[in-house]
Amino acid sequence: MRTVGVVGGGQLARMMAQAAIPLDIRLVVLAERETDAAAQVVRDVVLGAPDDARAMHELAKCCDVITFDHELVDTALLSRLEAEGFRVAPSAATMTLAQDKRLQRDALQRAGFPNPRFCASDDMETALAFATGVGFPVVVKAARGGYDGRGVWVIADESAFRDLFSDLRARGVPPLVEELLPLAGEIAMLVARSARGESVVYPAIETVQRDGICNELRVPAMFPEHHAEAARIASGIASLIGMVGIMAIEFFIANDTLYVNELAPRPHNSGHWTIDGARTSQFEQHLRAVLDLPLGNPDLVSPQVCTVNILGGAAEIDPRDTLEVALAVPEARIHLYGKEPRNGRKLGHVTVTGDDRETVFATAKRAVGAIESGRQD
Amino acid sequence: MRTVGVVGGGQLARMMAQAAIPLDIRLVVLAERETDAAAQVVRDVVLGAPDDARAMHELAKCCDVITFDHELVDTALLSRLEAEGFRVAPSAATMTLAQDKRLQRDALQRAGFPNPRFCASDDMETALAFATGVGFPVVVKAARGGYDGRGVWVIADESAFRDLFSDLRARGVPPLVEELLPLAGEIAMLVARSARGESVVYPAIETVQRDGICNELRVPAMFPEHHAEAARIASGIASLIGMVGIMAIEFFIANDTLYVNELAPRPHNSGHWTIDGARTSQFEQHLRAVLDLPLGNPDLVSPQVCTVNILGGAAEIDPRDTLEVALAVPEARIHLYGKEPRNGRKLGHVTVTGDDRETVFATAKRAVGAIESGRQD
Repeated sequence: MRTVGVVGGGQLARMMAQAAIPLDIRLVVLAERETDAAAQVVRDVVLGAPDDARAMHELAKCCDVITFDHELVDTALLSRLEAEGFRVAPSAATMTLAQDKRLQRDALQRAGFPNPRFCASDDMETALAFATGVGFPVVVKAARGGYDGRGVWVIADESAFRDLFSDLRARGVPPLVEELLPLAGEIAMLVARSARGESVVYPAIETVQRDGICNELRVPAMFPEHHAEAARIASGIASLIGMVGIMAIEFFIANDTLYVNELAPRPHNSGHWTIDGARTSQFEQHLRAVLDLPLGNPDLVSPQVCTVNILGGAAEIDPRDTLEVALAVPEARIHLYGKEPRNGRKLGHVTVTGDDRETVFATAKRAVGAIESGRQD
Repeated sequence: MRTVGVVGGGQLARMMAQAAIPLDIRLVVLAERETDAAAQVVRDVVLGAPDDARAMHELAKCCDVITFDHELVDTALLSRLEAEGFRVAPSAATMTLAQDKRLQRDALQRAGFPNPRFCASDDMETALAFATGVGFPVVVKAARGGYDGRGVWVIADESAFRDLFSDLRARGVPPLVEELLPLAGEIAMLVARSARGESVVYPAIETVQRDGICNELRVPAMFPEHHAEAARIASGIASLIGMVGIMAIEFFIANDTLYVNELAPRPHNSGHWTIDGARTSQFEQHLRAVLDLPLGNPDLVSPQVCTVNILGGAAEIDPRDTLEVALAVPEARIHLYGKEPRNGRKLGHVTVTGDDRETVFATAKRAVGAIESGRQD
């Protein structure tokens, strides 16, 4: 029996568990708590932190391959596991790159993939000269440790720049400075690549952010003139970094040009539409890729697919209490993550498929509104 | 958190577990063994037999409602649980009817639903007079305990009839004698009904039997002229027997007329196509119905859907070993049940959706052939 170990017990591991059942793949989850989203739905849980060498060894010993629900892992520990002969996918090298936005930018730059202009210097005067050169406002990112919009700041002037830069340096966070692009939109590409080098790319995804969280997905995306190039770049990056598994690549569209925003070498929020909207979900695809099985068809199941996130609100309404109202919305495919409600927390998503772009969007919004409020409008 | 207890740990409970994850429904499975198909994929397993009062109470106490993976349960025990205030869906009364083909025939007859001519007498001469009257060959069924073609015999003449009848009586099996219809085909209907009385009917399913096992499904079915009537009958029977949950009703088509063959008050082999081929799978629909949540859309996701069973062969090839070959068949949606291979055993199924009836069938057969043989033709 094939066994996949997943480091992290969040919703991505939970949705992997769902995809593992029909393929008779055993999933073992390394979770910090018994109540974690994924730990609720699998039989085999190893309790521990991702930087706990003992727990990671326990996981490795019972699995054919180790993979990840998030990037916040100890890559030195992963390298040691690889040296001991355990399979890790994506590899320790790929995870190292994924954790560090500076390394990403450097690798992409060297390979000729389209970056915004950036400065990865630790020296404040060098970084400030760059910012002045490209012109304020600029974007400053924590090169390590940020997610879901945390660790990204738009900085208006030199004084604010100096304050933030000093603060980041004091906290030991390496800063990355980038030009602020005049965004026309954002798209994401999902690419799966297996150890044998087979790869497939999903149709381009239009992503709509709210407060730094990717909140709505629409497929097919706008900007069709950029899709072929985005797919070519996505495949190229997957090869470049030796990706094994599924990877999301977020792109900015500005100046009628694509720019790579960032990479996530795992199932990703921008791919949740694939569960109901693609022939093969990103979670099944990831399992196939890390086990070196043939990859599945990434095509759409209907002309239009829309996914909207369910976010916890100030009232901390529990989606389990309001599920009934939302299930009465025909066509809404509801996915809850088994998480306690908290303001701004991703608690689930709703996908709608159909023929008309605006209808599927309106239906998804109606179901999400129902579940977030407990009322159907 | 909503909790559903499932009596039985087979593939139906396993596929319910998959459907439970996105709705954040906790599934607790009463399984005889830790290795049962469903026990492999849920966190909460109660070990025990369905006629073990202690185990059934343990299950009942941790669940909002008890439901079933099979009909081989102790209905007296279910009645006691109901009397103690536990919710059982379908009810003990419905399960009693489902276990006994004589009671089914009587109930349908009284309500005016179309039965083949039948004789439910324990008296051999009465039964023989019936058989002679409708004409040999006739069908003799074990009214209780049969499944998947076991317990059904086609009897050619009086001598064979007397032998079988005596044998069944000696073993305490109540016989049911039915006319042998000149079959033009078979269809099945899936109907879901919730406690509040909401019901939905899926499109008619064409079922192709092999050795008494329903082996292929095609949707939409042939015989469109009978579908509306079959749907009306299915809804009517669900109301008649107070069904709560999903129910499959198998029909014979003969003499240009529908006849009810039998009922199964649970997710059913004839509904496996719904996982990939319908807007709401039979497993999700069953969970919604037993929890009295709004029911989902039963429509097809594409014009044609075909499902073919994966059966164990004489060589006892393990589908886990041949999965890789089958995954290379584009479009095939493969579902394995985590069962050890044994000749004639249902080990999984493959569903293909698409636009052309013969293409989806050929693709499903190709994937099943690959997994049953380990070779792709």
